[in-house]
Amino acid sequence: MRSEIVVDPAPHAAWLPDGALAAVGRRRVALRLPDLSGPAQGHPRARPDNSAEVTSTLRTELTRATSAHGGAVVDPDDSPDVLLALVPELSGDGFRFVRDDGRVTVTAATATALLHGWFHVVRLREAAFTGPDAEESHAPAFALRVLDHWDNVDVHPVMGQVERGYAGGSIFYADGRVREDLSRVTAYARLLAATGVDRVCINNVNVHAREARLLTDDLPDVARVAAALRPYGVRTHLAVSFAAPMTLGGLPTSDPLDDDVRAWWRRAAERVWAAVPDFGGFVVKADSEGQPGPFAYGRDHADGANLLAEAVAPHGGVVHWRAFVYDHTQDWRDRSTDRARAAYDHFAPLDGRFAENVVVQVKHGPIDFQTREAVSPVLAGMPSTRLALELQVTQEYTGQQRHACYLAPWWSENLGFRPWGEDGDGTAVRDVVAGLGPNASAAVASAGGGGIAAVSNVGDDRFWTGHPLAQANLYAFGRLAWDPTLDPTAILDEWIGLTFAGPDGTVHARVREVLHAVLDDSWRTYESYTAPLGVGFMVRPGHHYGPDVDGYEYTPWGTYHFADRDGVGVDRTRATGTGFTGQYPAPWRDVYEDRATCPDELLLFFHHVPYTHVLRSGVTVIQHVYDTHFAGVERVREMVAAWESLAGLAPGAVGADLHARVRERLAEQLRSAVEWRDQINTYFLRKSGVADARGRTIY
Amino acid sequence: MRSEIVVDPAPHAAWLPDGALAAVGRRRVALRLPDLSGPAQGHPRARPDNSAEVTSTLRTELTRATSAHGGAVVDPDDSPDVLLALVPELSGDGFRFVRDDGRVTVTAATATALLHGWFHVVRLREAAFTGPDAEESHAPAFALRVLDHWDNVDVHPVMGQVERGYAGGSIFYADGRVREDLSRVTAYARLLAATGVDRVCINNVNVHAREARLLTDDLPDVARVAAALRPYGVRTHLAVSFAAPMTLGGLPTSDPLDDDVRAWWRRAAERVWAAVPDFGGFVVKADSEGQPGPFAYGRDHADGANLLAEAVAPHGGVVHWRAFVYDHTQDWRDRSTDRARAAYDHFAPLDGRFAENVVVQVKHGPIDFQTREAVSPVLAGMPSTRLALELQVTQEYTGQQRHACYLAPWWSENLGFRPWGEDGDGTAVRDVVAGLGPNASAAVASAGGGGIAAVSNVGDDRFWTGHPLAQANLYAFGRLAWDPTLDPTAILDEWIGLTFAGPDGTVHARVREVLHAVLDDSWRTYESYTAPLGVGFMVRPGHHYGPDVDGYEYTPWGTYHFADRDGVGVDRTRATGTGFTGQYPAPWRDVYEDRATCPDELLLFFHHVPYTHVLRSGVTVIQHVYDTHFAGVERVREMVAAWESLAGLAPGAVGADLHARVRERLAEQLRSAVEWRDQINTYFLRKSGVADARGRTIY
Repeated sequence: MRSEIVVDPAPHAAWLPDGALAAVGRRRVALRLPDLSGPAQGHPRARPDNSAEVTSTLRTELTRATSAHGGAVVDPDDSPDVLLALVPELSGDGFRFVRDDGRVTVTAATATALLHGWFHVVRLREAAFTGPDAEESHAPAFALRVLDHWDNVDVHPVMGQVERGYAGGSIFYADGRVREDLSRVTAYARLLAATGVDRVCINNVNVHAREARLLTDDLPDVARVAAALRPYGVRTHLAVSFAAPMTLGGLPTSDPLDDDVRAWWRRAAERVWAAVPDFGGFVVKADSEGQPGPFAYGRDHADGANLLAEAVAPHGGVVHWRAFVYDHTQDWRDRSTDRARAAYDHFAPLDGRFAENVVVQVKHGPIDFQTREAVSPVLAGMPSTRLALELQVTQEYTGQQRHACYLAPWWSENLGFRPWGEDGDGTAVRDVVAGLGPNASAAVASAGGGGIAAVSNVGDDRFWTGHPLAQANLYAFGRLAWDPTLDPTAILDEWIGLTFAGPDGTVHARVREVLHAVLDDSWRTYESYTAPLGVGFMVRPGHHYGPDVDGYEYTPWGTYHFADRDGVGVDRTRATGTGFTGQYPAPWRDVYEDRATCPDELLLFFHHVPYTHVLRSGVTVIQHVYDTHFAGVERVREMVAAWESLAGLAPGAVGADLHARVRERLAEQLRSAVEWRDQINTYFLRKSGVADARGRTIY
Repeated sequence: MRSEIVVDPAPHAAWLPDGALAAVGRRRVALRLPDLSGPAQGHPRARPDNSAEVTSTLRTELTRATSAHGGAVVDPDDSPDVLLALVPELSGDGFRFVRDDGRVTVTAATATALLHGWFHVVRLREAAFTGPDAEESHAPAFALRVLDHWDNVDVHPVMGQVERGYAGGSIFYADGRVREDLSRVTAYARLLAATGVDRVCINNVNVHAREARLLTDDLPDVARVAAALRPYGVRTHLAVSFAAPMTLGGLPTSDPLDDDVRAWWRRAAERVWAAVPDFGGFVVKADSEGQPGPFAYGRDHADGANLLAEAVAPHGGVVHWRAFVYDHTQDWRDRSTDRARAAYDHFAPLDGRFAENVVVQVKHGPIDFQTREAVSPVLAGMPSTRLALELQVTQEYTGQQRHACYLAPWWSENLGFRPWGEDGDGTAVRDVVAGLGPNASAAVASAGGGGIAAVSNVGDDRFWTGHPLAQANLYAFGRLAWDPTLDPTAILDEWIGLTFAGPDGTVHARVREVLHAVLDDSWRTYESYTAPLGVGFMVRPGHHYGPDVDGYEYTPWGTYHFADRDGVGVDRTRATGTGFTGQYPAPWRDVYEDRATCPDELLLFFHHVPYTHVLRSGVTVIQHVYDTHFAGVERVREMVAAWESLAGLAPGAVGADLHARVRERLAEQLRSAVEWRDQINTYFLRKSGVADARGRTIY
């Protein structure tokens, strides 16, 4: 398998290879559409209708599946095995799934929902038809399910084309403009539709000069992108610069309360919606890491967000306003300033002041997409605001798609976290962002909250995601966006079943076994050999790959561990620290406050403790550091060995080029894990002077 | 002075403002040339004659000086105050200076030497005429006095246009090619001629693809650069890539023993000399930090260097072959590998094998242009090789022209270092590179050794060097290249007298005083607040500015400090360490070996010691760290205050824009020095647990 690997130049099929369609494709399928010739156009302000494009897609999908596998597209009245029926009289974004004696009927109110129903049947594969009779309703938990692309039109001199991108260039842009050939964008939309994602923001939240012009000169190109996404029911959003009225409009100010500024944004929105009738809205990073924002005018984030909300409201648009606001020029000497506090301190006081079509987009943790951190208290602190949970599919801090790190268990923990404790009514983060939090305002509840968003990990790499197994993260995000209660291991199993389906629709048992062995615990494995006990960072500044324990320790970024010869960790208690624990409601404000009750995995996030502090697990902090780092490397060795064991399988079980790519990445993961282990262990041995109780080699 | 500073767009005059010419310019000056109409052309292989261009320059200089200051150019027989006489019957590169009753006569064998004599008179200013009668001979200590430019034709995506350049873009290149207007290059040559530098290598030793073509396609442009340098007697060199026969010539190999490769280089040299008859030679960085070299073919550096030497020999060319060769993919875990050993280990065994026109160019220290390191033992280990001392005028590790750091005292220490001890015959490094070392082979002695080279600090910045006071470093390098025994403070005084000369040729006393206050000890001040006791590095990886104590500690670069909770430093002893001390002759091999005799300022370069180790100065290592870092910042505060005191002087004393630029740089120096102090002190307090004996604030 090592030599003469023929690389297919076409993009990898990801979770929709032909084999994934075998179960439906072998059968007789039918599509029933209502008579569209009647006067069913709705009023002009209604959500723009993409049904023509999507029903056309449905026809294509049915034909594609059946022609590949020997089934047939038949008349709806000809007793099909699968009947898809568009029933405008129904309501909602979901679909109904009925199995009756091995025949399946899917009904939905919109073409997009019906498409989601079709892919539901695809995902079930043979099980769609073999289970007991069933009548099920499926609807997305969140109204807004967005993937954010941090893609630049130009190649940024430092950040490259895709900021924090680890999968090559952009699928949207090349050579400084929107690509001519957008077939790959449509293929991407198809993959997303098969998971449930329905919106894509196509440019970086750090809006550079070239990219700002997407909002103006480049609208015809944006319309082409939207047209490429639309057939799969995916709507287009743009990240915009708060300074656009000045930089693009030539106004002397971007003050959100200035009438000319308001008028400029209204006209900008009119132009966008004229070009893209089903445009979704704007995404904004303001007053954050150097981006312009309302602070320059003495205004706050509600003023800023509402300015844009007013402009997009007539078109049914939404504004995603990021809560990632903090002081990135902090003095490391000042232990009272705490970056973890920043989002809550900035935004919680504004609760209730945001317009109804503003979504405040909150990173899952209070710092920045770390492998482990506490859940952001903002999610429990703004009941009168539509909040979205922001996740990061691109693996900035989790191995950059060189390490296999299946993130769904981590996201699932965040989604399932109960901000008001286990003993309350069971309300979890997933409920909050669905508009179901305690004390949710009527407006928040009726809008269904702010939903979910994530930074995509996709680029123009043949495997889409650099590391082929990182496709599982994209897939899992989409599935959790649709249903956040899904079990991560079950999602992974589903992904394996689709992605590695042979022509007959089945997966080699050994492949399934190995993929679970490699991925199931890979996030915890990654955690075990990187920064310990929730302390975070310890990565190389700038690129954020690989270890550098003190890399951020004396920088302005607010990400410190405060290790000295006696101990390590950040004191965020109310009693002696920054008071961050006080941003949580009970019981967490007290659970986190006390070392004795604080969960081990977050101990150093909340407390500065001696190396000899005994964890709830019974071992000391320093010994835990050594043990986990040695163990983590051994786990990676097992992952490597497991993957190697696939090399002898029949060629079809795993594509030769995919196997080779994963092998190459696993080799790098092992090298890097050893580097992490040795640097972390050496750093703490040199500092603490405490020898490893088991006498292993530390340098 | 703060507001309404009018910035002159013309390049700053540096040390040759009109005022610097007042003393000669007020007088009656004359130029006597031999009859050039005769058959004095020499044979074709003789050093090409630039006398036509340089004598023309001499005429221009005389006219320029006298027309500015009211003197006159007169007939040589008309009793001039200054007579310059070209006397081909003399020999050598020097000149004779005779003062007889206030009249000055300068004689030399070549136009270039006479030009150097002219600038000698300029530098003396009024003192040229007012001293007692004198007859002096002046000749350069080194035959080769080179400035290396690390300029790229293209802007490198990481390193910029000038690698390790802190003064803007290149004076040679813009927009991806050699500049059309090279008047600035000629102005640069004039400045160099006034110091004694006579060769410039015009491109980066890291030869990228675009720059490699200077050797081929771009030769007409190289000829234009050479023509711009030639009027001031400055010869042009090129850095070349060892892989050029493959990358430019299309050969399948660059093996130095391959006949086609040898022929390719011979033809390449023929083309270069055809285009530039007084071309100097090639500079090569081979098998170093990723550059190609002879190792790929199982050949050694002598094979590689001799290949090029053979090609340039027929033209009288020289090859500067850098000894900066080490393993840059070292394992930080391996304490036996020592980067300090690398140059000696690679090159000393090759002594005697290099061709006579090869100069092995040796960085002054065994690591890399640190603020403090030991002198390279290579300089004492290759008596049968022409060695050049390589210095770094550009302040890569010494404040990057944001910090005022006058480097001449440091260079002077290196030049005056006696590798065989104080009790020997007094032979110093400056003697070795002049071909006067003990056991120097006849070839080395007759060639006058390899001379001196340095990396230039010049860019297209208005002040040439970013920090206006960094001009002093360029000036001092040139003066030490001519006469390495000069006193650094005297050189500085000379530089002040020229650079800040008012229209009447005098310098405001307060300006002189302040410049000495700011610059005299600035290198030791910089040392005091950066990495302590010779341990080096502790800079931010990549850009090398600002502190990062552990920045290189776990990297492959071989630059470590090994600090742990007990102590710090690199054990390079023979007894327990890497054995590097054994590369030195006696007495240094023993002086450095023993902590008790090792100089304090190099202690951590040679030894790993406890924080409580008592220095020869009587304080502990840890207290020394604290004390020097607090003191260093206070010294910078004094520098800032001294400079501010000039703000009230008459506008002419210091140019307003120069004053503003230096003020801005000093503010950054203070900010940076505080950052260095606090990071270093905090790092060592956290690690050692030893409190400052004087109770000052450490974070």
